[in-house]
Amino acid sequence: MAVIVQKFGGTSVGSVERIKAVAQTVAHWQARGNDIVVVVSAMSGETNRLTDLAHQISSQPDSRELDVLLSTGEQVTIALLSMALQAMGKPARSYTGSQVRILTDSAHNKARIREIDDARIRADLAQGRIVVVAGFQGVDEHGNITTLGRGGSDTTAVALAAALGADECQIFTDVDGVYTTDPRVVPEARKLDRLTYEEMLEMASLGAKVLQIRSVEFASKYNVPLRVLSSFAPGEGTLIVSEDAVLEQAKISGIAFNRDEAKLTVVGVPDQPGVAHRILGPIGQANIEVDMIIQNVGSDGLTDFTFTVHRNDFCKAYAILEKVAQELGAQEVSGDEHIVKISLVGVGMRSHAGIASAMFEALANEGINIRMISTSEIKISVVVDEKYLELGVRTLHSAFGLEKTDT
Amino acid sequence: MAVIVQKFGGTSVGSVERIKAVAQTVAHWQARGNDIVVVVSAMSGETNRLTDLAHQISSQPDSRELDVLLSTGEQVTIALLSMALQAMGKPARSYTGSQVRILTDSAHNKARIREIDDARIRADLAQGRIVVVAGFQGVDEHGNITTLGRGGSDTTAVALAAALGADECQIFTDVDGVYTTDPRVVPEARKLDRLTYEEMLEMASLGAKVLQIRSVEFASKYNVPLRVLSSFAPGEGTLIVSEDAVLEQAKISGIAFNRDEAKLTVVGVPDQPGVAHRILGPIGQANIEVDMIIQNVGSDGLTDFTFTVHRNDFCKAYAILEKVAQELGAQEVSGDEHIVKISLVGVGMRSHAGIASAMFEALANEGINIRMISTSEIKISVVVDEKYLELGVRTLHSAFGLEKTDT
Repeated sequence: MAVIVQKFGGTSVGSVERIKAVAQTVAHWQARGNDIVVVVSAMSGETNRLTDLAHQISSQPDSRELDVLLSTGEQVTIALLSMALQAMGKPARSYTGSQVRILTDSAHNKARIREIDDARIRADLAQGRIVVVAGFQGVDEHGNITTLGRGGSDTTAVALAAALGADECQIFTDVDGVYTTDPRVVPEARKLDRLTYEEMLEMASLGAKVLQIRSVEFASKYNVPLRVLSSFAPGEGTLIVSEDAVLEQAKISGIAFNRDEAKLTVVGVPDQPGVAHRILGPIGQANIEVDMIIQNVGSDGLTDFTFTVHRNDFCKAYAILEKVAQELGAQEVSGDEHIVKISLVGVGMRSHAGIASAMFEALANEGINIRMISTSEIKISVVVDEKYLELGVRTLHSAFGLEKTDT
Repeated sequence: MAVIVQKFGGTSVGSVERIKAVAQTVAHWQARGNDIVVVVSAMSGETNRLTDLAHQISSQPDSRELDVLLSTGEQVTIALLSMALQAMGKPARSYTGSQVRILTDSAHNKARIREIDDARIRADLAQGRIVVVAGFQGVDEHGNITTLGRGGSDTTAVALAAALGADECQIFTDVDGVYTTDPRVVPEARKLDRLTYEEMLEMASLGAKVLQIRSVEFASKYNVPLRVLSSFAPGEGTLIVSEDAVLEQAKISGIAFNRDEAKLTVVGVPDQPGVAHRILGPIGQANIEVDMIIQNVGSDGLTDFTFTVHRNDFCKAYAILEKVAQELGAQEVSGDEHIVKISLVGVGMRSHAGIASAMFEALANEGINIRMISTSEIKISVVVDEKYLELGVRTLHSAFGLEKTDT
């Protein structure tokens, strides 16, 4: 009998009707002969409601007490889902993070899981019960309630799947799987049956926000097969597994893109050791995350240093750079808020030469000027003017034949 | 340094503003040099909201899961109150029933406290922290969340006070103390400074519903001084203590009354052993609670058997009695839904003869006919026609000089 951990997010359990629908889905998978552990988030809106209450009390609520408060959100859901399963005649039992016991460190609001005691869950499964676990929360060694921070329920599900040696960890979302690219941009985008963890990480971090990065990393580390599927529509979704579980890999799995990028260049920096650090140090200190970084070979002892940041941080970063440029004796700072990043992702590109040139050729044929290029083992990213986003993505989707079924 | 346990109910913590006001009250008592443990209920309305959700899922929600659900109500309050205290610069820390650990039996929805581990609370108090505990909840020996049922937060407060050997357990309510009678009936009603547990029990069970009977019994058993005071108005409230802590006891402490009574009589019952049981057995089996029971000496081998029930149960009880009367060969069943009970309460009446006759005389002077009489060591109750309630209570209040201050 297979053990499956299923995770339903806030939207999937956002009302009494939806909780009943989740109970139907869970019962369906159990009826197929599986042992089921369900991980749920707070009902959508609930976490915001509780956070609002806290902020009405205090502008800086204590992190320990915030965890006590927020953890009630999932606790409500586990009780209601267990009741819904029981009302269908399915034995079920709920557990808070503390009851399981999901032991975490003491970093309130962003705790990390250290250890999971699976004894109670295994005992319940052995008795034919469906086990319903509160996501996003745990308990530290002193018995304090902790929360795992953003994406925490996914992490709970993957960690439970790893602890139980589950056959699959299913993440139910509002999409029916992972697509070759965003179907709103390319209507021909195709749902992928399989994908590797590495590809999923590149797709996720590049803007295809189906899964939390942390949970994919976690699944990869413990080799837990992840399946992304829809709460609202039937289907097998997309399975995310290790590379050796994907028999024949397509060259390119998908095209990710990011509309939120902005580009900054320090022009005419003296080409000396330590320059990159002197530029990026103050940016990091200002809590600005940097994405792509490019420095080309210089001439005349000068070089240009370019990087991209989230568009929201553009003005802040610009101001910092103007000061840094003066200190470094650089010529000037230039920037562009109207750029986007488009990336080809695929583990197959490692063993196939010529992907990059095919990509650049396809873009050139459409008159799209490439402003920056950055590559890694399984992806090639280009920065282009904002206005070329849709054209660029569609062009590449077609050039690499992604609308066709897997071969 | 005195240790005080303070309990605030749902209305007292019903909004963010009220929680802030509670924090002010708590800080005030701490500033007077006390160590404070605060017990809170769910914000008013929250328990109903959660119960509604459960009933939308299932007409008979599982009792274990209902406890998981309902216990979130107090958990929200403890976090918010701790934040409010911290925002005032007062170190505070919250605990759920499970975290304290308040060990209960496994009777979900109506659990009883078995044992309280006060180690963490004592450690926090020693460090100058205010400790905020979720009322109404505990945990059984298997780690399941339990709730104590109605009045549970009062019970939590008293049990904590007993475990800590607290100097006082303060119950904050929407009234500023216990009165000689209901001020809505007798405007001259006077707040009592002190009262014994026994008197409070008689006052509470007879309709002056300030405190839960169970918590008064608990306080009496462990000799915990209880103080009833207002969340909304300043004042010292009413202290409820053991009899030996009341130096000079007034004869009469107060006048309780109950508008919800109805009276039933089985007329002409054969005066034989076992008759009372044959009449009350079927009533008890129908889950009807009986209050006063009176059987007078019979004549001609026949007697009349009378008792009172809650007015809501009158018709049900009447139907049962008609059947029983036939079986017993009784003459008939009569009943009256329009009666009320008025009771004089006071430990002092034990050592003062003539209280009863003074009571009957005062009522007679006003032309109030007494339909039933029942006495115990510290109370005398009479049943009169409904229309005489206000007149009767005012007459007795004046006759026993209760509007005067304690002597």
